[in-house]
Amino acid sequence: MKSKYKIGVCQMQVVKSKEKNIARARSMIKEAASAGCRLVVLPEMFNCPYNSSLFPEYAESHLEGSTLKMLSAAAAEENVYLVGGSIPERDGTTVYNTSFVFGPGGEMLAKHQKIHLFDVDLPDGLSFHESKTLGAGKKITVVETNLCTLGVAVCYDIRFPELVRLMALMGAEAVILPAAFNMNTGPAHWELLLRTRAVDNQVFLVGASSARDTGASYVSYGHSVIVDPWGRIIAQADEKETILYGEIDLQLLNETRAALPLLKHMRLDLYELKRLDDR
Amino acid sequence: MKSKYKIGVCQMQVVKSKEKNIARARSMIKEAASAGCRLVVLPEMFNCPYNSSLFPEYAESHLEGSTLKMLSAAAAEENVYLVGGSIPERDGTTVYNTSFVFGPGGEMLAKHQKIHLFDVDLPDGLSFHESKTLGAGKKITVVETNLCTLGVAVCYDIRFPELVRLMALMGAEAVILPAAFNMNTGPAHWELLLRTRAVDNQVFLVGASSARDTGASYVSYGHSVIVDPWGRIIAQADEKETILYGEIDLQLLNETRAALPLLKHMRLDLYELKRLDDR
Repeated sequence: MKSKYKIGVCQMQVVKSKEKNIARARSMIKEAASAGCRLVVLPEMFNCPYNSSLFPEYAESHLEGSTLKMLSAAAAEENVYLVGGSIPERDGTTVYNTSFVFGPGGEMLAKHQKIHLFDVDLPDGLSFHESKTLGAGKKITVVETNLCTLGVAVCYDIRFPELVRLMALMGAEAVILPAAFNMNTGPAHWELLLRTRAVDNQVFLVGASSARDTGASYVSYGHSVIVDPWGRIIAQADEKETILYGEIDLQLLNETRAALPLLKHMRLDLYELKRLDDR
Repeated sequence: MKSKYKIGVCQMQVVKSKEKNIARARSMIKEAASAGCRLVVLPEMFNCPYNSSLFPEYAESHLEGSTLKMLSAAAAEENVYLVGGSIPERDGTTVYNTSFVFGPGGEMLAKHQKIHLFDVDLPDGLSFHESKTLGAGKKITVVETNLCTLGVAVCYDIRFPELVRLMALMGAEAVILPAAFNMNTGPAHWELLLRTRAVDNQVFLVGASSARDTGASYVSYGHSVIVDPWGRIIAQADEKETILYGEIDLQLLNETRAALPLLKHMRLDLYELKRLDDR
């Protein structure tokens, strides 16, 4: 277990062409690895515009599509851990919003199918209904690596404090969140939620957004961010395409938990939070 | 049920004299009521300097002390709901950090004994150990009133997302938090935590701090705040003694829950949060 390692968050600009998105992700992974990153993260739906009606068309089956082949090869060739943002995944007759995690041998370590679907009608007129074309995941995703233990969630999942709490109780030290908040919820809640989940659970929180495309039907907020267990922002992007760098320092996590032992102070005699996904 | 009402948060300066604190609280309650408030809130340990060793000396038994008599009389005379901050309460052989809630007839509606005790050793040298002199409460406190349903918690309680979530599920529409964050945790986390609890649970969040006394052994952050269910700050104080005013608008709460139905989107098939305090 390394006590410190560098991560790179690829806030890439997603375009219509799936092939171009795959190529762009590949080159950003290479650049982050060349900069010394041991863990590289891509944004939500990085191979496909964020538009419910397009998800089925861009979907790939587990390890059979061009996106998944690229991710596995990139992890191996660059010798990095890779949280491959998310892509539309075809699993049987259902399409999921799925984050695939690869190890430095190119092996798939885990996949997280987004469990909370984004079905909203916001006051500014934005309506989005993922459940029209997507299925909802049924598993909480925590994966041990040689760097640290990672929790993986996707975008709207972060709004549910139970999820990150359970990840922390399952041992997560960093929670990786490929996401695409919008121009309404982004300014209002993006930084706030990531910082508080970090503070409450004393974990690192890594939010990887796509870059903003003001011509898209769904305009992503950008502002990818890396937060430490005290809630401090280590690094934050603006709205443009960039790679954001930061350091995960497990010593800092341990010091924070020693100073303010929140997880030990939980009143487990007064409330109980239980996983049901492992039944 | 009123759909809108005015509240007043008394960010009072706590001094050594218990009598002076009681008199000051009484005059601030009067001022807030005169300004049209239907609900008035006092800060944590408003009758006593925030110092563990003093709590037993300033403690009162349920409805028998001078502080509690004043609170009951003030609620009746000013015809307001009153969340009487907190005081050291002697209950049998144990002292608690307790918030008493009174109705406009002067009747005690509820009391909340702080359930998470503040036992920390912060990196800046601040050590505080409430458990040396205080007992920990065993009940989650939600009380129905003619204004709305109130959740009541005290200071460190707010760090545990399970508590506010359970309050919301029990029907709370506004969570009232008498508190005294300090000069380390205040700037780092006070506003962040209150805003996120409001956003996650789509409730109003009212944080009532004491005013800052830089000569005290424990220096309070101040910055009392009223937050709406979208996480917007309706009103916020600086560090000085003041009464903060704001409006609780239940229509806004309902609109927020309709636009972004977080409580309906919880995946209760994947995780379960249970109260155990009612067994």
